[in-house]
Amino acid sequence: MAEYKAPVKEMNFVLNHVANMPGLAQLPGFEDAQEDMVSAILDEAAKLSGEVLSPLNTVGDQTGVRLDGAEVPTPEGFKEAYQAFAEGGWGSLQFDPAYGGQGLPYSLSIPVMEMWQAANMSWGLCPLLSQGAVEAIDASASDELKETYLPKLISGEWTGTMNLTEPAAGSDLSVVRSKAEPAGDHYLVSGQKIFITWGEHDMAENILHLVLARLPDAEPGVRGISLFLVPKFLVNADGSLGERNDCAAVSLEHKLGIHASPTCVMSFGDNGGAVGYLVGEPGKGLACMFKMMNNARLAVGLQGVAISERAYQHALEYAGDRTQGRAVGHAEAGPIIRHPDVRRMLLTMKALTEAGRAITYDACASLDRAHKQSDKEQAARAALLTPIVKGWCTEFAQEVTSLGVQIHGGMGFIEETGAAQFYRDARILPIYEGTNGIQALDLVGRKTQFDAGEALTALIAEMQAVAEQALASDDHVQDGQALADALVALEGARDQLLNSTDTPEFAATVAYNFLMLAGTVCGAWQLLRQALQAAEMLQQGATDQPFLTAKQATASFYIGQVLPRYKGYAAMIEDGYASVLDVSDEQLEAAFI
Amino acid sequence: MAEYKAPVKEMNFVLNHVANMPGLAQLPGFEDAQEDMVSAILDEAAKLSGEVLSPLNTVGDQTGVRLDGAEVPTPEGFKEAYQAFAEGGWGSLQFDPAYGGQGLPYSLSIPVMEMWQAANMSWGLCPLLSQGAVEAIDASASDELKETYLPKLISGEWTGTMNLTEPAAGSDLSVVRSKAEPAGDHYLVSGQKIFITWGEHDMAENILHLVLARLPDAEPGVRGISLFLVPKFLVNADGSLGERNDCAAVSLEHKLGIHASPTCVMSFGDNGGAVGYLVGEPGKGLACMFKMMNNARLAVGLQGVAISERAYQHALEYAGDRTQGRAVGHAEAGPIIRHPDVRRMLLTMKALTEAGRAITYDACASLDRAHKQSDKEQAARAALLTPIVKGWCTEFAQEVTSLGVQIHGGMGFIEETGAAQFYRDARILPIYEGTNGIQALDLVGRKTQFDAGEALTALIAEMQAVAEQALASDDHVQDGQALADALVALEGARDQLLNSTDTPEFAATVAYNFLMLAGTVCGAWQLLRQALQAAEMLQQGATDQPFLTAKQATASFYIGQVLPRYKGYAAMIEDGYASVLDVSDEQLEAAFI
Repeated sequence: MAEYKAPVKEMNFVLNHVANMPGLAQLPGFEDAQEDMVSAILDEAAKLSGEVLSPLNTVGDQTGVRLDGAEVPTPEGFKEAYQAFAEGGWGSLQFDPAYGGQGLPYSLSIPVMEMWQAANMSWGLCPLLSQGAVEAIDASASDELKETYLPKLISGEWTGTMNLTEPAAGSDLSVVRSKAEPAGDHYLVSGQKIFITWGEHDMAENILHLVLARLPDAEPGVRGISLFLVPKFLVNADGSLGERNDCAAVSLEHKLGIHASPTCVMSFGDNGGAVGYLVGEPGKGLACMFKMMNNARLAVGLQGVAISERAYQHALEYAGDRTQGRAVGHAEAGPIIRHPDVRRMLLTMKALTEAGRAITYDACASLDRAHKQSDKEQAARAALLTPIVKGWCTEFAQEVTSLGVQIHGGMGFIEETGAAQFYRDARILPIYEGTNGIQALDLVGRKTQFDAGEALTALIAEMQAVAEQALASDDHVQDGQALADALVALEGARDQLLNSTDTPEFAATVAYNFLMLAGTVCGAWQLLRQALQAAEMLQQGATDQPFLTAKQATASFYIGQVLPRYKGYAAMIEDGYASVLDVSDEQLEAAFI
Repeated sequence: MAEYKAPVKEMNFVLNHVANMPGLAQLPGFEDAQEDMVSAILDEAAKLSGEVLSPLNTVGDQTGVRLDGAEVPTPEGFKEAYQAFAEGGWGSLQFDPAYGGQGLPYSLSIPVMEMWQAANMSWGLCPLLSQGAVEAIDASASDELKETYLPKLISGEWTGTMNLTEPAAGSDLSVVRSKAEPAGDHYLVSGQKIFITWGEHDMAENILHLVLARLPDAEPGVRGISLFLVPKFLVNADGSLGERNDCAAVSLEHKLGIHASPTCVMSFGDNGGAVGYLVGEPGKGLACMFKMMNNARLAVGLQGVAISERAYQHALEYAGDRTQGRAVGHAEAGPIIRHPDVRRMLLTMKALTEAGRAITYDACASLDRAHKQSDKEQAARAALLTPIVKGWCTEFAQEVTSLGVQIHGGMGFIEETGAAQFYRDARILPIYEGTNGIQALDLVGRKTQFDAGEALTALIAEMQAVAEQALASDDHVQDGQALADALVALEGARDQLLNSTDTPEFAATVAYNFLMLAGTVCGAWQLLRQALQAAEMLQQGATDQPFLTAKQATASFYIGQVLPRYKGYAAMIEDGYASVLDVSDEQLEAAFI
């Protein structure tokens, strides 16, 4: 099995022409993000991902992790890879130079993060969570906490976790029961948290747990939840590590995928209470956590893109090597890549992956603009795109990794082939960081109905401009018309949402189809704008024919062979909620009870 | 985790009103298939599947199988379950009474087979393959071979396998290399076969391998392939078991799913040659094997239905038990089944499963009519439906088992929950017995273009009649219109296929979308005809309100929330082949090379 090759050319193209990195580099503080520097960063990250992390992916899956007393030894090579990551400063790209960060755009850290996830998703979850912890502490913690914890977290010497879920509190965090009792300058935290990713491991010397818990006098519901920083080892005044805190992994989950990522049941306060520090204001824990959760959602969507890229490269290699049967239009037996149906599958993988990548990078660039320029429109744009990135990219990751298995035929079902691991690993993506059902509700509710469709209408206008540009182009007239037609359907669905605020059942029922409609249409937009850009570059004499013409071909493929799905989603939204909600529980089980 | 409950009421309904079992029972030889008898058989099979096989499903997955010398010990309880199966005569329902069979309709054996597959797919593959071996021997072998081997195979004392695939010969069997040398009254078979399901095990005293191999003077290609019966133990003249034959499992595959089903690499003739007997004529091996493969394809489609039913029951139970969040229209937190998106997922699972079940039983009933009445139209109908059953039902099984994981949220990713096993097990279905790409080519080529669309046109007429009946009904006018519209799209796609026989690239490229279009439309037809039947029964005073009204609601749900996918498939067919085939190999890898 060949190792992962980061698609650096593609990443540079999307950064330049979708995320508009040259424009970002003109903003104060982002001066370092010049094209050469960006390209050099991607090249270096490509090496680490391809040469160090990718070769550990299979062994991580096969070895897995286990609890050894209170310790979790990681698979061979993981710790060394993590040291190389930390020493390379890879965890610090987008963070505040005041705490050791490099002050680069968040959207530049995204292709780099994509590489870790594509090379080794289990391993990549550790820095992904640490990044979230930096964001939460940076956004809400006191200066003292920041000074004590951020530098080591940003340098990668320590890692971070998110402790939200409890057995009875999953999608609904309002029923969190963990407690925090005041004790002088700190709190004593107790309770059990589940599904804690990288909650315990041996790759770094300390782990900072961000924990949702309730103060003694807290009101019930979400407004009674506060956020606490609970380090695995307490930190002395001089910055050195002190006592072991009263928190530990008490068991690990046996999972379908990401076997090398320890998913811990964490117990806090078994011996009197874990020392914790309040982050942000009491009762504002969920808001503080959401500051990291929004970015984490983008990162999970990015994982969908990443594992899709990996599955695509893997399937493409096999399809070029494996000889089986004589394809239409060929005189002799040859590699299966010649078979039209295999080609259709490969192009579906490629087109979805590139569409998702562009949406993701674009959303992250909007976040950069929103932060640097306090631009509310960009903030609303990023907020609107976030559930689409998380929801749509993780849905298509299921399809793409499944196609990766299928292209391998019988070998795809054999674990040693590797395609099955991508398929298993990818299955967590629609679930964690808010299930895709939750993302869909966020999209139709907070992001569409609550702002009277303003952000969505602005996005549709952007997409219409691309459709019009295509209609006026030489090569993509038909593609432009197809996108324009799809946008009419999206507008129709938006209007149905906006006209149904008095029947909330409607939005709740159609939410998933709306998310898929929006994602599918956005994918066409992003690929078409890249195709138009490529056409222009070719006209201006650019020489990278295969890459640039592939951009055009991929857009046309997507618009002909993927975009038409929107017709189904639109019709299902049109169908409304009666056919879903008029069915009783008794009817659901009538066939076998 | 609750055990599988065979949906006996549903199965009886589909047998009576879709497969028209009462009509079949009037045919000579099928007199025993009266309603009482059918129902009693289903009730008994339901017990064995729910009480014996279902409880072994998890342990089978966890224990798996291993090669111990040349032996493959099966997981605890598997052997006893198989003995109960054989003693109950469950393997003999549809076979020739002359060899110990019960002479019942094939279509009656189908719900029974569905139960084994739903309860325990790994285990169920053993009788599934044995059934195929009976069919191949019965159809093509000499009377002497039949007399020696069929009674014990039909009784379940022995089991059977299909040995087709070799490392270089998968979808393309024309390059099979295994050899058979004449040696008096038998042949000496040698070669290596891979992916041999239940190729070795300890559940029965003998195993009959049906092996594709070439005679010394055979021409190259498919016409040089013959079929041989190679028993694990030779059979003495008195029927007792003799010497161990020169064939053995040399390794087992480590697979994504169906862990308890041994997938063997089989070696024949390591010590001079395995004794084998020619089945059918020399050079006709593929034709003989296809006699069993067609039914095996129906059986694999049935596995898709079966595992979907299992995943549905499992998810429905969880959704009723798990409390999380307050659903729209409810004042308090309650079970997640109340959430519209969860309901949508459950109904999607239920509707696809019931649609697939009806198509499958219906196709099998056509086979019964074709055989009993030498009815060519029924034979063509069954032949047309076979790739739809295999392809479409196994595609939706991926979706349904994935929804089963999703409904469980984070718990769905934990192996102990059980949802992940269904998801893993199901992944083989689009691959084996001819990948779904092969099924799609069969549908557009042999089954549509080669008969000038005759069988498909007849099927469309049947579906139009149901749409018209619905348009004239009280409750399903809108559903009838939607089906009629979808049929127009299916006719359009058929015409495109028939008009493109001079550009074979077209059919090869759109084949998958045509298969999905046909399956999706057939699903609506099958559910709507059941809904109309239920409405009529209710009008005539039938009392099983929940079941019959659920039939109506499920049809309306499917037509509103699943059928609209046809619009996408039709548009992708319309798009044709250029966007797929005009992309070069170089362009496919341009982003990362």
